[in-house]
Amino acid sequence: MRERVTYVSLSRLRVAPERADDLVAAFRGRVHLVDDAAGFVDLEVWRSDRDPCEVIMVSRWRDRDSFRAYMRSREHAISHARIPDELQAAIDLERLEHLHTYDVVAT
Amino acid sequence: MRERVTYVSLSRLRVAPERADDLVAAFRGRVHLVDDAAGFVDLEVWRSDRDPCEVIMVSRWRDRDSFRAYMRSREHAISHARIPDELQAAIDLERLEHLHTYDVVAT
Repeated sequence: MRERVTYVSLSRLRVAPERADDLVAAFRGRVHLVDDAAGFVDLEVWRSDRDPCEVIMVSRWRDRDSFRAYMRSREHAISHARIPDELQAAIDLERLEHLHTYDVVAT
Repeated sequence: MRERVTYVSLSRLRVAPERADDLVAAFRGRVHLVDDAAGFVDLEVWRSDRDPCEVIMVSRWRDRDSFRAYMRSREHAISHARIPDELQAAIDLERLEHLHTYDVVAT
């Protein structure tokens, strides 16, 4: 039985073509500090079929409070600080959405 | 261990305010024909915090071929045909994205 998700954060990123592989590598090499955060369920990174420079990061949470607490945490600050400056500069955050799951209709 | 996902279909829907609850009810009452489709992993429906008329439907698949086979299936046609005409008319498909998961970086 998967943990109940009621809160989802979706970040749509656009990365310069020459840095797209670095962004992938950065996600793969992430420090996994979030994994132990209270209420964290999972994190996925998706890349568009049509445009490999468009990347969506989705994190799922038990509830909004868990997400907010993590965003204020030392662990979040550490994770973000690990992103190399030149990669950070190549990434545009096109859209940040906070969504709640009103129903997980299938698992 | 969750099934490996390599393909995600994301539909961004906009629904007329007076029909938003009907759309939620329609998803909750869905016939679940997709659940038995080969390669289907799960389906979730998210609603925006800021705009309750904006709804995202996300289905996750083992691979692109499984998704394509389902889209051509009788089960898909039946599921879609169940949407009442007046609800269908109140829904705009704002954006349809097909993404592949290049990495499920945490579970």
